[in-house]
Amino acid sequence: MRSDQELFREIKGGGVTAARGFVANALCCGIKNPKATRLDLALVYSTRPTTSAGTFTSNRVKAACVRVSREHLRRADLRAVVVNSGNANACTGRDGMRVARKECRLVAQELGLQEREVGVCSTGVIGLPMPMVRIEPRFQELCRDLSAKKGHDVASAIITSDTCEKEIAVRFSVGGKEVRIGSCCKGAGMISPNMATMICLICTDAQVSRADLQSLVGECVNSSFNRITIDGDMSTNDTCIVLANGASGVKLTPGRPGWKTFCAALQHVMLQQAWRIVRDGERITKFITVRVVGAPSVAEARAIARGVANSSLVKSSWNGGDPNWGRIIHAVGYSGKRVREERVDIDIAGLPACRGGMQADTPSDDLRARVQAESFEIRIDLNLGSSEYTVYTTDLSPEYVDFNRSEYAYWNQAKQDGLTR
Amino acid sequence: MRSDQELFREIKGGGVTAARGFVANALCCGIKNPKATRLDLALVYSTRPTTSAGTFTSNRVKAACVRVSREHLRRADLRAVVVNSGNANACTGRDGMRVARKECRLVAQELGLQEREVGVCSTGVIGLPMPMVRIEPRFQELCRDLSAKKGHDVASAIITSDTCEKEIAVRFSVGGKEVRIGSCCKGAGMISPNMATMICLICTDAQVSRADLQSLVGECVNSSFNRITIDGDMSTNDTCIVLANGASGVKLTPGRPGWKTFCAALQHVMLQQAWRIVRDGERITKFITVRVVGAPSVAEARAIARGVANSSLVKSSWNGGDPNWGRIIHAVGYSGKRVREERVDIDIAGLPACRGGMQADTPSDDLRARVQAESFEIRIDLNLGSSEYTVYTTDLSPEYVDFNRSEYAYWNQAKQDGLTR
Repeated sequence: MRSDQELFREIKGGGVTAARGFVANALCCGIKNPKATRLDLALVYSTRPTTSAGTFTSNRVKAACVRVSREHLRRADLRAVVVNSGNANACTGRDGMRVARKECRLVAQELGLQEREVGVCSTGVIGLPMPMVRIEPRFQELCRDLSAKKGHDVASAIITSDTCEKEIAVRFSVGGKEVRIGSCCKGAGMISPNMATMICLICTDAQVSRADLQSLVGECVNSSFNRITIDGDMSTNDTCIVLANGASGVKLTPGRPGWKTFCAALQHVMLQQAWRIVRDGERITKFITVRVVGAPSVAEARAIARGVANSSLVKSSWNGGDPNWGRIIHAVGYSGKRVREERVDIDIAGLPACRGGMQADTPSDDLRARVQAESFEIRIDLNLGSSEYTVYTTDLSPEYVDFNRSEYAYWNQAKQDGLTR
Repeated sequence: MRSDQELFREIKGGGVTAARGFVANALCCGIKNPKATRLDLALVYSTRPTTSAGTFTSNRVKAACVRVSREHLRRADLRAVVVNSGNANACTGRDGMRVARKECRLVAQELGLQEREVGVCSTGVIGLPMPMVRIEPRFQELCRDLSAKKGHDVASAIITSDTCEKEIAVRFSVGGKEVRIGSCCKGAGMISPNMATMICLICTDAQVSRADLQSLVGECVNSSFNRITIDGDMSTNDTCIVLANGASGVKLTPGRPGWKTFCAALQHVMLQQAWRIVRDGERITKFITVRVVGAPSVAEARAIARGVANSSLVKSSWNGGDPNWGRIIHAVGYSGKRVREERVDIDIAGLPACRGGMQADTPSDDLRARVQAESFEIRIDLNLGSSEYTVYTTDLSPEYVDFNRSEYAYWNQAKQDGLTR
């Protein structure tokens, strides 16, 4: 019997418009900087009615776009999502809410939709008014010239400090008909679980009920985007929106043929995107999997995995290629509530580094050789139970700090735009 | 009426042996590196019986010395404390416990004390066996030549990546008699509340009951060492030990003359030492006070103050002299449970940066000028209640990460010592 994974295939070069019935466009508005030439405003649109689902940041401080998209998603299914980079529209008060609603209204007017059928995502600096003077005149153009060939432009328009576009699409067959799932996302900084700091758009031509879709999306996000951390900083703008338009002619329902493959495929898309976000973390050099096993509960395993993954000292040692299990166990000790030091085993990149809370026999040069790799696993066995949790993370580099020292350029531009003093 | 602060005076040049009846010694044993010439083993001893109190790390992974000192303190009052740098004696299993007990026993034998009257502190790398071969032969020498003039040597012997000794002593009069409190401490890395990663020794010639002393020490630690964070990493070795030997002839009791001054003086000593630890954080450039007011509870205020103080993104922007209130409010949002974004006010270095969750009118150049200072306050008003909490912290610098990339030199030495493979 084939595994679920083998039932679907990646579509080479596929992105957010890989599934049938989805079109897109992207423009350069100079949101962050009027002289810039990069794409920064994008639209994805389903030519057919959809069901839709979404998950949003659990930060108490939420961007206006998050509030509006959440509200729209509660009241209707989304047919279109407008996304901009260069400004987060966060901490912008009532004006920010008016701007987010206006973006949805402008799209709705052009496409003949209800305002509540449009979602809106923004990413960029927090606290600056959106330069609507440069965006508003472009909505007509944005909503024309829509094409299934412009998925990649959307992927380009939504990235910020990402070094590359993040796209993936998969396909599988159900009863002789092909179902596709396409996606693009952005990450880079402010990456922490619940939800990871990012925007992810996923479009599928499967037909799925709203309730089934929302429930599945929640599960998949918990096993992917909620398991990554770069800097432990949860953003105000995290959004993952999934649209399903049924253009494949395949109706999927739990327990019926094709459902399990759809679940596995959607999970694959999200996990791949989550990993790409981690691998493209701001100025990082390593991709680390922190796996906690033998825990008395999932909550305990999660707290410890996140504690280790977010420790500045542990992350600094990874950057230095130092197999420092002492710093790992110290983070285990302050993150967990029920740790028993004398039972803790730690493997680094497949070699025993710590046994029973003490140094293992592995020669330190062997450990050191292994952690020079770009990617390895830290496996922490608490030997207290059977629960486990995995987090995907990075090292902390001097360059990350240097890169994040100043966003002053944004503020300077905002002053020139007359949006701030 | 004079304030409590005015009732005591600092003793210039005073350290851990400033109070009468305390003597000390320090040696160079080459614990970290046999060729090193710096002091790394120290002893503080009260020539008279004492009462004593202590607080220890709440990390579940505790160094052997912490376990032994805590046990001894439960069973007796400490007359002597032996401290070493260069090795933390943490994650060293039963051998580590044997070593810690042996250190106490060797001191006890030399000084004619019970083993349980000796405390032991260690600081340095985690997970390596203590090189007893270089320490054990030195205990006789350590316990002779004790002198009240060697307080500064103790301060030198206990520091690790600290750039300077941390000593303070104060004096005040009660009924014509002078009471003194002396102290030394070390900090530098792995600094996070509960308790802050550090060792602090405090010796006073006041006579105070064990119960009164323990209760006061707990209070003072909560308002000082538990309010500092450098990297959010709580160590396995945090220890604060206070000895009171009554040599001043002054008996102090709550509600009686001198008690309030004693409380204020002890609080002053701990807060000054906590601040020095922050100011001397590994490769940091700024001292930041994060003050959360208007909170619905102290717990909420504390969670938010610590969240802001530990955010890598916020700390990076401080390093860059960037008055980035957007990153501060984003950390407020993920740290607090009851935040209402539209009520949040943030002042940076005395200027309004955010009002009602939005950008304040202050010109950004004015804010920017202020945060070039080496020291400033971030004041966050939640406008939800009357509780508050203050945390003292630092920026995050590229140099911090670089400094913490590798402890490989330690492991190499341990291999040469035959203590590890």
